[in-house]
Amino acid sequence: MQIIDFANTKDYNVKVIKNTMHTILRRKGKKMESYFMFKNLAIIIIAAKVCGIVARKCKAPQVVGEIIAGLLIGPSILGWVEQSDFLVQLAEIGVVLLMFSAGLETDLKDLLKTGPIAALIACAGVFIPLVCGSLLYMAFYGVAPWGSEAFYKAVFVGTILTATSVSITVESLREMGKLKGKVGTTILSAAIIDDVIGIIVLTFVIGFKSPDSKPMSVLVNTVLFFVFAIVIGFICYKIFQLMDSKYPHTRRIPIAGLALCLAMAYIAEKYFGIADITGAYVAGIILCSIRDSKYIAEKMDISSYILFGPVFFASIGLKTNVDNVNMSILLFSIAFVAVGLISKVVGCGIVARLCKFNGLDSLKIGVGMMTRGEVALIVAQKGLSAGLLTSVYFTSVIFLIIVSSILTPIILKILYSKDTAAPTTE
Amino acid sequence: MQIIDFANTKDYNVKVIKNTMHTILRRKGKKMESYFMFKNLAIIIIAAKVCGIVARKCKAPQVVGEIIAGLLIGPSILGWVEQSDFLVQLAEIGVVLLMFSAGLETDLKDLLKTGPIAALIACAGVFIPLVCGSLLYMAFYGVAPWGSEAFYKAVFVGTILTATSVSITVESLREMGKLKGKVGTTILSAAIIDDVIGIIVLTFVIGFKSPDSKPMSVLVNTVLFFVFAIVIGFICYKIFQLMDSKYPHTRRIPIAGLALCLAMAYIAEKYFGIADITGAYVAGIILCSIRDSKYIAEKMDISSYILFGPVFFASIGLKTNVDNVNMSILLFSIAFVAVGLISKVVGCGIVARLCKFNGLDSLKIGVGMMTRGEVALIVAQKGLSAGLLTSVYFTSVIFLIIVSSILTPIILKILYSKDTAAPTTE
Repeated sequence: MQIIDFANTKDYNVKVIKNTMHTILRRKGKKMESYFMFKNLAIIIIAAKVCGIVARKCKAPQVVGEIIAGLLIGPSILGWVEQSDFLVQLAEIGVVLLMFSAGLETDLKDLLKTGPIAALIACAGVFIPLVCGSLLYMAFYGVAPWGSEAFYKAVFVGTILTATSVSITVESLREMGKLKGKVGTTILSAAIIDDVIGIIVLTFVIGFKSPDSKPMSVLVNTVLFFVFAIVIGFICYKIFQLMDSKYPHTRRIPIAGLALCLAMAYIAEKYFGIADITGAYVAGIILCSIRDSKYIAEKMDISSYILFGPVFFASIGLKTNVDNVNMSILLFSIAFVAVGLISKVVGCGIVARLCKFNGLDSLKIGVGMMTRGEVALIVAQKGLSAGLLTSVYFTSVIFLIIVSSILTPIILKILYSKDTAAPTTE
Repeated sequence: MQIIDFANTKDYNVKVIKNTMHTILRRKGKKMESYFMFKNLAIIIIAAKVCGIVARKCKAPQVVGEIIAGLLIGPSILGWVEQSDFLVQLAEIGVVLLMFSAGLETDLKDLLKTGPIAALIACAGVFIPLVCGSLLYMAFYGVAPWGSEAFYKAVFVGTILTATSVSITVESLREMGKLKGKVGTTILSAAIIDDVIGIIVLTFVIGFKSPDSKPMSVLVNTVLFFVFAIVIGFICYKIFQLMDSKYPHTRRIPIAGLALCLAMAYIAEKYFGIADITGAYVAGIILCSIRDSKYIAEKMDISSYILFGPVFFASIGLKTNVDNVNMSILLFSIAFVAVGLISKVVGCGIVARLCKFNGLDSLKIGVGMMTRGEVALIVAQKGLSAGLLTSVYFTSVIFLIIVSSILTPIILKILYSKDTAAPTTE
């Protein structure tokens, strides 16, 4: 047997090996490990449901339970389920379905009304965490002069803090029936815009360090994507309206809807370099005003809660392995999480307050925007490959994701429960 | 870069490489190709739906359209979608869901009533194709003396013909609303028993050739599995009855049902060496008499028709590549397909007729049993690794799967349409 030095293989080699592996594995036995996925899925959906029910009994939202379920059954604690490529891909479909449903449940008029304010909130939600994160890094590792290597590293830590991952907020708001309110729509629109700004910032930071990525092209691509989405969106909307009037409540409508969602997710990533979840959300918005939008949402919801949703939320917990954490990383992580959460709440909350939301609603918006998710991990990964980050900070990012995922739904629930005591304008 | 001689790697090396690859790929970029699956899924579900609708317009069942969709978009014709591990696993979930639904829709009383007759039909459905297939091989390649190498090869070709794959019949019967009738239940039970007998035959044939697999243990395992299923089934049934009366029509019921289905599929394969689909079907039967069985079936059905079903049926077409077919293989394949279909229809049909089904119903049973599916491919794969088969016969097996998958639903539909003209006892 030859020894294969995988550490030295480059991307090209990886691709070659991978293709060969695929062929071998496909020939050697397609069934080799396929039945293990049944075990994993069974454990995940049962654990997620049980923990979800327990969470609800404790007055916390179900998603918290599902994330904790992932932690429990994952390598950190029980080790019953290991992350696999298949689970990662199922989780990816899960988050895309979630964003599609969120889009479907959007009120387009509300979205257009909240758009400008959402854009302002999103800007604050990107730049305040960016600055605070950079300062945090400098506080720990010394002030770095403008343009130095350490300076970019500091800015990069700030960049990780920029991207909101709204899926957990969406699920929490939906559980409470608050997704469609003014606050819900503002959070969602702000999170979408925030995502776009976050990606632009990332590309700028990496672009300044290595000259082969082009910050301007990202900006252009983003604009082009939305132009594309409006044109295609209008055509698809007309087609769906036609289908809707000819074949109302038939299976072909949710199927075509799902296909549109998947296609938009793909096109967004492939041709415009925009997150797949943004594409899926836009697909939902395209269909949110056809007559059968509720019918589509209902079918997506069932697919989602039966399998894809639990897999997605549990996968956040599954990603975590708390074995190699030491004291100094722990300390940095705690500061990182605190700065990450507070800077978002303050940034978004203050702008919301300035935009004439009342105090409670501003706080809801700030809290709703503070969740981080897989986008933060992806940003961190890009930083790793650009040499701006060492892998030790991954633990901090995962901490941030878990803490924010668990805290956001709980705080949101508390904030919304205050509404009944003192009804707001919403 | 080192050149890696994959052709010489053994199973162990493959495993090592695979694990390393997983780690590398997971680190290098989880998102690397994840968005390609969105494209593939979008193409599959749209193509399957469009072809399904066209098929129905041509008075053929939708599944035929879905299989043809797979052929069209697959490497044989358009090449838009390539088979991937992810699609294989989704398709696997698809077929498991399908069998679970079939189990859920079973009438337990009917099943027990049809059991003995189904067992007889299954025996005929295994042994007649087994004998005919062996004779076919000898007709093409010369008579082989008992116990010789060529003799086992001939028997193996017969073995490939034994296992019925009932999923397409199930879907066709369901489309026509005939799944629950006496004929439908008989076909389903016979197919399940046939599967078990087929696996025993396979193990015997391979067992005689290589002494390290133990035919007797398969028989014992099968019996043990059904004992296990009855015990666990009774316990689960009681638990579900309790849940059903305490929380009727809640999400936890279909979720727990799906978990049971996945767990049974896993346990069947892992601990008893029985096909996962048999486990899933048994899980369905366990739950078929609880009050919410229809509620569970409805939710599974939605998950199935939106994504998993089309992926499964299209994947049959996707597996096919008609590039390297020559005249002699084509000739053998035609004979193989003809023998495969006719021997099942005749074997099962005659026994059904002897068991006092009328002529038309006997024919329906025979035709319903003639579909072959992934089990035939798995058997062929086992033969390949046992040295009983060369890979050239894969094309024949795939032809058989496609032809039977397309013909069965069409013939079934024609046969059932005769019912209205001359009503039978069903």
